[in-house]
Amino acid sequence: MKILVINAGSSSLKYQLIDMTTENVIAKGNCERIGIGGFITHRITDGVTIEEEANFPTHTEAFKKLVELLTTGENKVVNDLSEISAIGHRVVQGGKYFSSSVLVTEDVIKTIEKISDLAPLHNPAHVLAIRACQEVFGKETPEVVVFDTAFHQTMPPKAYMYALPYEYYEKYQIRKYGFHGTSHRFVTGRLAELTGWDMSGKKIVTCHLGNGSSVAAVKNGKCIDTSMGFTPLDGLQMGTRSGAIDPSVVLYLMKHEGLTPDEMNTLLNKESGFLGVSGKTSDSRDLVAAASQGDDRCQIAIDIFRYQIKKYIGSYAAAMGGLDAVVFTGGIGENSFDLRREVCENLEFLGIHINQVLNEDLNHKEGRISADDSKVQVWIVPTNEELLIARDTKNIISK
Amino acid sequence: MKILVINAGSSSLKYQLIDMTTENVIAKGNCERIGIGGFITHRITDGVTIEEEANFPTHTEAFKKLVELLTTGENKVVNDLSEISAIGHRVVQGGKYFSSSVLVTEDVIKTIEKISDLAPLHNPAHVLAIRACQEVFGKETPEVVVFDTAFHQTMPPKAYMYALPYEYYEKYQIRKYGFHGTSHRFVTGRLAELTGWDMSGKKIVTCHLGNGSSVAAVKNGKCIDTSMGFTPLDGLQMGTRSGAIDPSVVLYLMKHEGLTPDEMNTLLNKESGFLGVSGKTSDSRDLVAAASQGDDRCQIAIDIFRYQIKKYIGSYAAAMGGLDAVVFTGGIGENSFDLRREVCENLEFLGIHINQVLNEDLNHKEGRISADDSKVQVWIVPTNEELLIARDTKNIISK
Repeated sequence: MKILVINAGSSSLKYQLIDMTTENVIAKGNCERIGIGGFITHRITDGVTIEEEANFPTHTEAFKKLVELLTTGENKVVNDLSEISAIGHRVVQGGKYFSSSVLVTEDVIKTIEKISDLAPLHNPAHVLAIRACQEVFGKETPEVVVFDTAFHQTMPPKAYMYALPYEYYEKYQIRKYGFHGTSHRFVTGRLAELTGWDMSGKKIVTCHLGNGSSVAAVKNGKCIDTSMGFTPLDGLQMGTRSGAIDPSVVLYLMKHEGLTPDEMNTLLNKESGFLGVSGKTSDSRDLVAAASQGDDRCQIAIDIFRYQIKKYIGSYAAAMGGLDAVVFTGGIGENSFDLRREVCENLEFLGIHINQVLNEDLNHKEGRISADDSKVQVWIVPTNEELLIARDTKNIISK
Repeated sequence: MKILVINAGSSSLKYQLIDMTTENVIAKGNCERIGIGGFITHRITDGVTIEEEANFPTHTEAFKKLVELLTTGENKVVNDLSEISAIGHRVVQGGKYFSSSVLVTEDVIKTIEKISDLAPLHNPAHVLAIRACQEVFGKETPEVVVFDTAFHQTMPPKAYMYALPYEYYEKYQIRKYGFHGTSHRFVTGRLAELTGWDMSGKKIVTCHLGNGSSVAAVKNGKCIDTSMGFTPLDGLQMGTRSGAIDPSVVLYLMKHEGLTPDEMNTLLNKESGFLGVSGKTSDSRDLVAAASQGDDRCQIAIDIFRYQIKKYIGSYAAAMGGLDAVVFTGGIGENSFDLRREVCENLEFLGIHINQVLNEDLNHKEGRISADDSKVQVWIVPTNEELLIARDTKNIISK
């Protein structure tokens, strides 16, 4: 069985074709500049990479192009579209309506559209992609949607409610949703495999640290809290996002700089975080390099980030009443042994002891980096959201 | 030696006259409706309470009236103004300029004025009161200012910097300041007396929980982090304040409700918190009563608050690399054994064990409520900000 996984933005379409027998990626790529031109990058497993200018007025043409590359020419990977059993879509916002992945129906599409207001940059693009997919693959190819928010739907009200006038929760559904749920769920599941643990009774903190970052508290295998909120702006400092700040600061800056809500939104989402503090870069590797050359502001950006992660680990341990494991994933989580060392430093009182040799040796890889006598296990688990989307899709169409 | 302690708002003037030999309050009261009428409530220690309509066009007339009550008539407590050695003022915002209490000079007044933008409701009123005081008492009576922010000035950049474009830190001094510092410092000092601890090496979380609430991490006797931020809006949910929320929510609500920054500020400061969530009350006692009658929204407000405090304790333990004591203070912290029990529940992994009998018996009182074998000591320490202001004043004028 082969499953096509789609992660669509308003002007892009990332895809992976996965063989579900081996769970290997057969081909993957990205259609870019949809609506404003067109460019496709397409890679197949034996190392061939195709890069082509294209004409993508809409997502439909992008799908047609990727189907062409998958099914025709000397680099084709399937003989016929019918070999692709199903399509799995990443959807950013499922609101309160979706606590798990579901088969696409007209009702499902309408619900995703209905809550577009909660993810205006993402949900409309997902709907465009789903409809374009129906057009290109035909309605007989089942589609499944997998939500970034679904894993977090198990949070209790005390974790997801904001202390705002209740009417805004009713009127606009303003609450914490959390994001990166597919990643937090993937690494939680993988941790269970790696440790052989029954997750019942287990208390895990999963740290997804990349250009976007979030932390989740996973108790009994279910998310009970997470750092992102109503939107992916909340929580940790990120590449260009501020993370949590005093809400008064938003108002103070708008007043003093004469900014509209949209301009302020751009400031908080695109000009803050690592980039804003350092004034140099949104890339954590560049930050670290500059800090090692003595750049104070880069050092502050690094310090803020690591300190915040450390505090979330303590906070979520308290929320769960203990701690059995910490998982690092995402570009930074998997690849920065410095960060992992510093975050775990002085957390011995929680039972966290890193083996520094393992921490460095296993960088980029999957494995346990805590010392043998560490009460709390610490793991690097490379995330694979696409694979989880493919697995969910397979499970749902196999029912 | 007698010291007059002043806590001035724009239309009010709370005061306490304290005998520094016994540290007892001789008289205290409140001048209200300054600028819009006038009313004084004046209490002396033998139980006499005077309540009078008055005429307070400015703080000066209020000072004259309280001096009249202190020095004349059958209920006078001093024979002459010269018996009052000094005056200590509470000042909300000292910015980065004041890390301890100081004697009032013209330069000090100008600095407090200069940073009025950071506390527009408070600092101008403090300056009015300081100048009125000079007028009524004469410049020969020394005045001292004690800052709510001073205790938090020891925070490192990783705790006080927001991940915003750095220029706003330079231009507007936007950073975390923290408030309630006088209370956090008072209970920290009192804990040292009660335990006999040298604070060096000690890791304490102080929870000031009242109509306004904040938590502080105190390591080696110095604050390293606190929950309030640039303003007293940040951190925990409060009576009418939202506390921390996703900054995107501020923008979302402004856009969808058509609110100006000032209107949004009012919403977050006056209509949120316990009041907003419950729709009923900003008073935690009323919340608890209504929740016990089955009011779900009151229960959610209670749950959010207790859960947030619990998370801060874990977070700050991680920040400090351990935990030796937790202190509860403030109206709610001192008086709600339910809250203390629930906050400390399931924190055994941190070494916290409450003695439930002590927790209930010592309600409202000062004392240790942790079990004898609790690794972490848990205390109720009634706060006394006025006394600390008086002590600082005494120390400074005695130099």
